[in-house]
Amino acid sequence: MVETVFRDPVHNFIRVQDQVILDLIGTREFQRLRRIKQLGVSSMVFHGAEHSRFSHSLGVYEIARQFADHLAENYTMQAPDDGGWDPNERLVLLTAALLHDLGHGPYSHTFEHIFGTDHEQYTQQIILSPETEVNRVLRGVSDDFPAKVASVIAKTYANQQVVQLISSQIDADRMDYLLRDAYYSGANYGTFDLSRIIHMMRPYKGGIAFNFKGMAAVEDYVVSRYQMYAQVYFHPVSRGFEVVLTNILRRAKDYFELSKTDDMIDGDFMPKSLRSLFEGRITLTEYIELDDSIMLAAISEWRHVKDPILADLATRFLDRHPLKSVEIEEGARSMLPAITELIAAAGYEPKYYTAENDSFDLPYDAYHPNAKKPQTQIELVQKDGTMRELSEVSTLVDAIKGRTFGNARFFFPREMLLEQAVGDVMAPLYEEFQRYVHNDRLIRPVEGGIK
Amino acid sequence: MVETVFRDPVHNFIRVQDQVILDLIGTREFQRLRRIKQLGVSSMVFHGAEHSRFSHSLGVYEIARQFADHLAENYTMQAPDDGGWDPNERLVLLTAALLHDLGHGPYSHTFEHIFGTDHEQYTQQIILSPETEVNRVLRGVSDDFPAKVASVIAKTYANQQVVQLISSQIDADRMDYLLRDAYYSGANYGTFDLSRIIHMMRPYKGGIAFNFKGMAAVEDYVVSRYQMYAQVYFHPVSRGFEVVLTNILRRAKDYFELSKTDDMIDGDFMPKSLRSLFEGRITLTEYIELDDSIMLAAISEWRHVKDPILADLATRFLDRHPLKSVEIEEGARSMLPAITELIAAAGYEPKYYTAENDSFDLPYDAYHPNAKKPQTQIELVQKDGTMRELSEVSTLVDAIKGRTFGNARFFFPREMLLEQAVGDVMAPLYEEFQRYVHNDRLIRPVEGGIK
Amino acid sequence: MVETVFRDPVHNFIRVQDQVILDLIGTREFQRLRRIKQLGVSSMVFHGAEHSRFSHSLGVYEIARQFADHLAENYTMQAPDDGGWDPNERLVLLTAALLHDLGHGPYSHTFEHIFGTDHEQYTQQIILSPETEVNRVLRGVSDDFPAKVASVIAKTYANQQVVQLISSQIDADRMDYLLRDAYYSGANYGTFDLSRIIHMMRPYKGGIAFNFKGMAAVEDYVVSRYQMYAQVYFHPVSRGFEVVLTNILRRAKDYFELSKTDDMIDGDFMPKSLRSLFEGRITLTEYIELDDSIMLAAISEWRHVKDPILADLATRFLDRHPLKSVEIEEGARSMLPAITELIAAAGYEPKYYTAENDSFDLPYDAYHPNAKKPQTQIELVQKDGTMRELSEVSTLVDAIKGRTFGNARFFFPREMLLEQAVGDVMAPLYEEFQRYVHNDRLIRPVEGGIK
Amino acid sequence: MVETVFRDPVHNFIRVQDQVILDLIGTREFQRLRRIKQLGVSSMVFHGAEHSRFSHSLGVYEIARQFADHLAENYTMQAPDDGGWDPNERLVLLTAALLHDLGHGPYSHTFEHIFGTDHEQYTQQIILSPETEVNRVLRGVSDDFPAKVASVIAKTYANQQVVQLISSQIDADRMDYLLRDAYYSGANYGTFDLSRIIHMMRPYKGGIAFNFKGMAAVEDYVVSRYQMYAQVYFHPVSRGFEVVLTNILRRAKDYFELSKTDDMIDGDFMPKSLRSLFEGRITLTEYIELDDSIMLAAISEWRHVKDPILADLATRFLDRHPLKSVEIEEGARSMLPAITELIAAAGYEPKYYTAENDSFDLPYDAYHPNAKKPQTQIELVQKDGTMRELSEVSTLVDAIKGRTFGNARFFFPREMLLEQAVGDVMAPLYEEFQRYVHNDRLIRPVEGGIK
Repeated sequence: MVETVFRDPVHNFIRVQDQVILDLIGTREFQRLRRIKQLGVSSMVFHGAEHSRFSHSLGVYEIARQFADHLAENYTMQAPDDGGWDPNERLVLLTAALLHDLGHGPYSHTFEHIFGTDHEQYTQQIILSPETEVNRVLRGVSDDFPAKVASVIAKTYANQQVVQLISSQIDADRMDYLLRDAYYSGANYGTFDLSRIIHMMRPYKGGIAFNFKGMAAVEDYVVSRYQMYAQVYFHPVSRGFEVVLTNILRRAKDYFELSKTDDMIDGDFMPKSLRSLFEGRITLTEYIELDDSIMLAAISEWRHVKDPILADLATRFLDRHPLKSVEIEEGARSMLPAITELIAAAGYEPKYYTAENDSFDLPYDAYHPNAKKPQTQIELVQKDGTMRELSEVSTLVDAIKGRTFGNARFFFPREMLLEQAVGDVMAPLYEEFQRYVHNDRLIRPVEGGIK
Repeated sequence: MVETVFRDPVHNFIRVQDQVILDLIGTREFQRLRRIKQLGVSSMVFHGAEHSRFSHSLGVYEIARQFADHLAENYTMQAPDDGGWDPNERLVLLTAALLHDLGHGPYSHTFEHIFGTDHEQYTQQIILSPETEVNRVLRGVSDDFPAKVASVIAKTYANQQVVQLISSQIDADRMDYLLRDAYYSGANYGTFDLSRIIHMMRPYKGGIAFNFKGMAAVEDYVVSRYQMYAQVYFHPVSRGFEVVLTNILRRAKDYFELSKTDDMIDGDFMPKSLRSLFEGRITLTEYIELDDSIMLAAISEWRHVKDPILADLATRFLDRHPLKSVEIEEGARSMLPAITELIAAAGYEPKYYTAENDSFDLPYDAYHPNAKKPQTQIELVQKDGTMRELSEVSTLVDAIKGRTFGNARFFFPREMLLEQAVGDVMAPLYEEFQRYVHNDRLIRPVEGGIK
Repeated sequence: MVETVFRDPVHNFIRVQDQVILDLIGTREFQRLRRIKQLGVSSMVFHGAEHSRFSHSLGVYEIARQFADHLAENYTMQAPDDGGWDPNERLVLLTAALLHDLGHGPYSHTFEHIFGTDHEQYTQQIILSPETEVNRVLRGVSDDFPAKVASVIAKTYANQQVVQLISSQIDADRMDYLLRDAYYSGANYGTFDLSRIIHMMRPYKGGIAFNFKGMAAVEDYVVSRYQMYAQVYFHPVSRGFEVVLTNILRRAKDYFELSKTDDMIDGDFMPKSLRSLFEGRITLTEYIELDDSIMLAAISEWRHVKDPILADLATRFLDRHPLKSVEIEEGARSMLPAITELIAAAGYEPKYYTAENDSFDLPYDAYHPNAKKPQTQIELVQKDGTMRELSEVSTLVDAIKGRTFGNARFFFPREMLLEQAVGDVMAPLYEEFQRYVHNDRLIRPVEGGIK
Repeated sequence: MVETVFRDPVHNFIRVQDQVILDLIGTREFQRLRRIKQLGVSSMVFHGAEHSRFSHSLGVYEIARQFADHLAENYTMQAPDDGGWDPNERLVLLTAALLHDLGHGPYSHTFEHIFGTDHEQYTQQIILSPETEVNRVLRGVSDDFPAKVASVIAKTYANQQVVQLISSQIDADRMDYLLRDAYYSGANYGTFDLSRIIHMMRPYKGGIAFNFKGMAAVEDYVVSRYQMYAQVYFHPVSRGFEVVLTNILRRAKDYFELSKTDDMIDGDFMPKSLRSLFEGRITLTEYIELDDSIMLAAISEWRHVKDPILADLATRFLDRHPLKSVEIEEGARSMLPAITELIAAAGYEPKYYTAENDSFDLPYDAYHPNAKKPQTQIELVQKDGTMRELSEVSTLVDAIKGRTFGNARFFFPREMLLEQAVGDVMAPLYEEFQRYVHNDRLIRPVEGGIK
């Protein structure tokens, strides 16, 4: 086929050179990803970050295509098991890259939390189910092709080079989302030299390593990843919205339950398109029709629902009034029951108006075979062909290796921080609450004022 | 107040320094703009261009703020009517910049076409209606403040400097959308040197002019604008989606009409949230609750409606199957009835499956006082204080002055271009149709084959 | 060989994949280009633009390499004379690209003007002379390889595709210098989408054309070129320095002549390294040792030479006091003798202190077979394989086609513009001179003052 | 005065708003900086990095101007000693920023090493000496202005805010050189968000601190600085050229000494312009006339000098043949005498053909009052006004605090690494030498070959 290109601000162009890939992009299931935001509620804080999983998926594909070109050009396998790249793996690599996020639901993180679904399972189901357009296209390649692609997603595929290119500490998925999220959020910390990293990539029997000369580029990638987590993904206000959304869905679920037994509640508040989801018996076909707009349209309706909690939470979400938060320092964790009580006393049901949320990450780690999720480490190839693990040679990576960062936060209604709420009957409660907060941290209040 | 900043990929930071502005951003009506895409269906072609009117509006505000700072610092009025900048105009300028797009509906262009609404009218209504949060914030400044801001939008405000900064051939609105749409679409033609242009800006009695030394920057802006129209705004595939969307709404309207008289049709296919809109009696409050997600959720439902036309069009829209098109060259316009007939014969009701769509623009024009919409021309100030109109001194702008560009296109179902549709009973119709198409243009077919 | 890369801010990396290219870069003649600035005196105006011909030459090579890769991958010739790309031309293309500027002297434009040399001749000589390291490396490929490369430079090479890739209205040389000069000067008008243009490139029998879809990118390139000429290359202050440098060399030549007959003048003021140049009997070996530093070191010495004119001009150059200028509008050309007389009366010998300098350019032209230097036009390939010349389809290029722009300027000592030079005996002369200047243009003075 | 702007690729525009600054830029001593490369020999490795100290100095000025504007706008002192910014310090800040590098000689690092000069001393002398144009302009401000500016350079100025803005762990000088060297070298690791850092800057009594919200931007700056050192400033090949240049000057000095006693050596090989320098009795006026071109022109002449060592080293420098190097790991340091002997045996006089060179740096350090050069630490201001040192709150900076990185290398002629030098009588020496080198490191050779 003649190459088809898609203009993309991150990679300039996405180049499609295989009819299968073009056909997959054209499927209903893949087009759905246009209607699912990549960063969910983060766009409430980073207003520029309104990009979709569709554009991210194209980006992962494009990076994988550049991987495949580089490996085929420079490291094609000459004999079986010589550690070279097998060009026959190209299509399975590109396909898995393109489809790796197919199973994401709207506002995926929150969604899975409430409905107990698993997007990786759905990705594999969409690939394997004979009902989907994606499966039909994949079967066009060969009968076992859907199963091969699904096994790459599941990381059980025999060729570990393919698996690591899609899923490791430095893979096509992460590289695209770091670059893309940095570009769209404007948080210009997430950039690194993609073309240099690709150029330094070398296959070996056990997977993918990097030329020693590429150390600086790989180091820069590790730091960028750290910075994006610290600045964007863990942003406390985004987490405040995530909590609101979680509580909306929790309340809608509870209220829907109630409607079945309580005649005063009209179950019609739940749109048809969401009913089987809330009833826990959603089919694959129904799942594939879900997207952000259906969730948002429901929340818009709930603004007017009779239940005051659901209506209030929906309004907070749409009109951008997130829950506020404080960092919980270790010594102050025991204060939580006391302040939760104050919040309840001020009229906010804690189940729907408070939350604890921990965000911690490990920016880089060496291989721990006994860890729950052992991570592939990053290897650099020296002049004589032997490999050294990244942190052995990078002062910077060695410094941060194995260190976790992030924090635990407690979320509550912003009203609790109102100052000089003259005439408000809750004012004394607010004032008492504020004795527990200093420099945006939860503290153990001192008798007679702070400090 | 302490300055509040919003990270923005186009301007790096949006700096808010006035409580009024911060309060306006926090209103329900302004937050709604988060849920309306700036470029509507264009994101079906430029997948990166998923940004909202919210981010554009913040951008226009930020540019206006930089205008105000520059003018106040360098050209503050010393005596009444000396042509200098009046710093008291700052707040009205910033407010009008921020709110200028408040009245946009979802997929605005198509929306207005079908429902006969006018977003500028709505913008003024939202500003002036005592029901809105925006109005309440504005009244906090002074009783006549809402009216002042509305008159800037209406271009009737006395201070023409303020009006031109928001609305002229080179204004805050255009500058932000060119930069932003270029950034998000990846069509890197739309960039120009914003800080240079601002720096060259000078007020005079009749409005805003530019220092002669800024000629290159202004020229570059004019060319960038031309390129964005040619490459992005007039893209034939985007227009193909606009036609599909228009026809969806047209069909939904017709079908809704039918449902009132035809018992076989269940009017329930129309979601509650859209009913008063389709009945032509929408209130301001209802209008303010409309957004892209409500439209998209409706189209998702219509995928399963009984009416085959509406269901088919909805599916084409969601699964990205735009109408195709050809350019209508002048000599071939008379072919339209013939090919429309072929399309009808192939089973596609022309009212819902075809369209003519003309896109023409004038990249730069000098002032024509008798024109329907006379445009302010761009003036450059020479060393001795006299002004010269841009095209008098720029070879490039002189060359394109007064030239229109763009084209007229005819849209039709992509099936008409199917080749070798073996076994398809419509194949002879398709083949006949294709005799009218050459190099993507509508032609007058030659007997015995093309050319 | 293993690929060797050079970090480059314009192309990110210059990739060298052939030992011959690496060896050529390592030659003495090529390394000399490090010591010759690409833009000569322009860095006196654009202080960032201090880059060398070495970096430009690497850039042209890199673009040519990308051309070759694109053409080989997509358009390799299948049969003789089918218009495809012949991969055997790769090395001659890359070599000619790398070496095309080898013959440039220091401050080339001025240099050639004064010494009557021709850098293209020198380039060919360096390639062909058995004395050079370059020639030795080229002969290593084959005996006739030096002659082949030289004929590409001379545009007489049989394969016109190769010639056009190096030298046409849209070639590797221009593309690199526009991008590079824009990058280093900070005059951000010169950018365009190089990778898109390369991607749209198609060979045909007569040379190189572009896919119709690449129209926007090519149009953007044409406009960028226009803007770089208007803003950078024709900058009046750069031209003021060029005039100073020209006059330094002219005076040094005259004074050196004088020294041969006038015993009072010590010919030793001329450094050994420049003597044979000024005597008009420079050898190739001597020419190859010339560079900017030798010229500059000489000018530094001349600051202290006995001749007041040469010493003054050298000081003006080093301490950055350019000649000033006015635009000569057609009607005012007849004023030149009068103002030249005023300058002479003020004590400045016109031969060394004034100059006329015309800079005009044609941003794009269609082919005129009878023109003195007929230019290849830019062709776009339509769907059916036929070609259309760029200006037939681009409104913008059509508008500027065949239009020249630029101006004629007259240069003079900046002292002539001194205002209120109280106590200066020349003050009345300055005042009279200033009657001829208005808005930086030469005018016909009006009796009784201007205006 | 009307603002004058200089286009700059790093800051877009350098804005000059004071006549004193414009006059200083116009002085002979400042214009000299155009002829001194910022990075010296590094441009032999990073060919794009040919920028001058002139452009860096303008950049430092521009950053300082933005500092001053930010501080005056937001933190102007309201009462004596309230820790606010004193707007009267503006001019001394801008002047010190502009002039801080005035005293640099050509290839400064090497130069000072050989001639025992100190550029900071020279900067102060140029500012204070009544002979210079710079001093004359400064005296125009006030009689004590030169002394004030010099004391900022010397860090003894009373106002520590001014001193820290020019010279601390995060100052205008470092910020410009990191951004500029990254831009010109193309080593895109050195970037950070300058405007954000400026925006977060806050004065306090003891100096300059940063708003807590700016933590990420400051952290990013610290990492960028580390990366630029690791990738650019410590590049082993640059250091190989520095060693060649050092040895050229050392040999020229020794040879010049010899010429005084040895009649066979003609002292004329030393250009007039360098004589007093090499004789150790250079005057300020002579110093100010030195620049890169004078050094380079001398080296060009020395290519042909009779002394084979000086001629050979000059040729290696001009034709780009650096000394090669290996990293000295601690355990292998004792091998140095043995390999130095091999080098001498191969005919290379160790004094001129070998060198040890250590490059180590501390990317960030907290304050150690007893350190030889105690560094100001970076402070962040919390909500309640108290300050915390950066590494207390940044996981990343805490990880690297106090860690040095870099390495020690040994340099030698590249011939020592020649492989299979068949027929070369030195071949056995080379082979023996190569037993000490593995993976670019100096090792203790193993009996019977490596591994």
